[in-house]
Amino acid sequence: MQLNQRTVFIVSDSTGITAETFSHSVLSQFSKSFEFQQIREPFVTTDEKAKAVAKKINEIAEREKNPPIVFSTLVKQDILAYVKESNCVFLDIFGTCVSQLESALGAKSEPTIGMSHLSASSEAYRNRIEAINFSLAHDDGQFIHGLKEADVILVGVSRCGKTPTSLYLAMQYAIKAANFPLIPEDFERGSLPKTLQPFRNKLFGLSIQPDRLSEVRNERRPNSRYATLEQCLYEVAEAERLMRREGIEWLSTTTKSIEEISTTVLQILGLNKSSY
Amino acid sequence: MQLNQRTVFIVSDSTGITAETFSHSVLSQFSKSFEFQQIREPFVTTDEKAKAVAKKINEIAEREKNPPIVFSTLVKQDILAYVKESNCVFLDIFGTCVSQLESALGAKSEPTIGMSHLSASSEAYRNRIEAINFSLAHDDGQFIHGLKEADVILVGVSRCGKTPTSLYLAMQYAIKAANFPLIPEDFERGSLPKTLQPFRNKLFGLSIQPDRLSEVRNERRPNSRYATLEQCLYEVAEAERLMRREGIEWLSTTTKSIEEISTTVLQILGLNKSSY
Repeated sequence: MQLNQRTVFIVSDSTGITAETFSHSVLSQFSKSFEFQQIREPFVTTDEKAKAVAKKINEIAEREKNPPIVFSTLVKQDILAYVKESNCVFLDIFGTCVSQLESALGAKSEPTIGMSHLSASSEAYRNRIEAINFSLAHDDGQFIHGLKEADVILVGVSRCGKTPTSLYLAMQYAIKAANFPLIPEDFERGSLPKTLQPFRNKLFGLSIQPDRLSEVRNERRPNSRYATLEQCLYEVAEAERLMRREGIEWLSTTTKSIEEISTTVLQILGLNKSSY
Repeated sequence: MQLNQRTVFIVSDSTGITAETFSHSVLSQFSKSFEFQQIREPFVTTDEKAKAVAKKINEIAEREKNPPIVFSTLVKQDILAYVKESNCVFLDIFGTCVSQLESALGAKSEPTIGMSHLSASSEAYRNRIEAINFSLAHDDGQFIHGLKEADVILVGVSRCGKTPTSLYLAMQYAIKAANFPLIPEDFERGSLPKTLQPFRNKLFGLSIQPDRLSEVRNERRPNSRYATLEQCLYEVAEAERLMRREGIEWLSTTTKSIEEISTTVLQILGLNKSSY
């Protein structure tokens, strides 16, 4: 079946990242019959820029004989008006919720441009960059002296997803996430690495299905012993046994995205950090 | 002035990350009179979980003598109903846009749980993890053999923000972002590092105000020559001169968040990558 084509504009006075993520969720509900082509218009902060976007929308509407869909987070009414009056299906993504809240809270909203992300000069933003640097410096068991400052220490066998998860936790939640590999020596000794023992309450385990692990390791080091299914079966079984015995909470990353893993880590460790 | 306190629930059948980011943008418009305390309820996929959330909402409503505000991305109507019927200000963040689109497109939506983020088994997701690994491996001029595969190569003086931006580009847009430092030897020679010359069209420069750079470097290496204002003034002036001469587009990161920098990089280099 031929899908219907529609052009989608993401129009924002800031980065438009919130609007874009939002639009993906909404549009996915129409993906059986439509295919969407996206155009991003960030930093639309002046009348001139808004007029240029409106012009582009009108041109595409004419060419495609269909009005484009516009996801807007514009807050200034005069700028918004230019875009809204173009030939489009205009979706003011914050508008409805803001109106509902005005009634419920009995207060007027005060729209400010570019409030979606914290300003780069705020302390919160600096904490976030610090967390990214921390997670990079404490990747893969490096630089163990900072572990006492970590909010969480991810443990698991090599290539089970610790590094991308640590970076996501840092980037999205300003969480100082170290990660530490569990290796055959640990399994032979039958205990956690000594370095980790003082930090038991910060540990969270990641595991993975052995066949998937073997696939991932083969991409990295083709035809190595490290990548054999046999080795992966052994390491995963031992790592899970160790985590069970040590009472470390863990989850399998096999079918989970870094967003899902990170959300679960926050939930289980009770880390009440706000998202960016 | 004492701010009014309100409890906010983020209720989702998936991670709730979209809902949380959305809620921050909306709530920031009420931040002059209200202070919000957030409770995250991800993975609400069953009647039981929905009932438990509804119970928690009702308890808080009673204790605070005010109904909590609920930002919901629940799509299944029966699960949603439990939460909606609790004592709360219920905001169905996708609902209004979905209804508007149903009319505009003349099509019924097909709600699916957890569509906000790509599934971990999709090719797109694997590309994203590959981009993160690429950016890590090509941080700070390391491992130069992969530069021909890079989508973008960020250049600039040490500590101007290249690493967090590279990781954000990889994580949010699956962009393979390498980064490469510009160092005093390059300024003395008066040309780009040889390694970079074949990739001129992928280069994007980051700069920073010298006093801010000195601050950042001092946190890293206190009282070093590297961190002196004098050295920072020299390096920034030379780097900007080099980039101007070589025709490399650049921006100042001093007051910009990684979201703002990344959005600008995409815009200027014309990289049409979709966000996650």
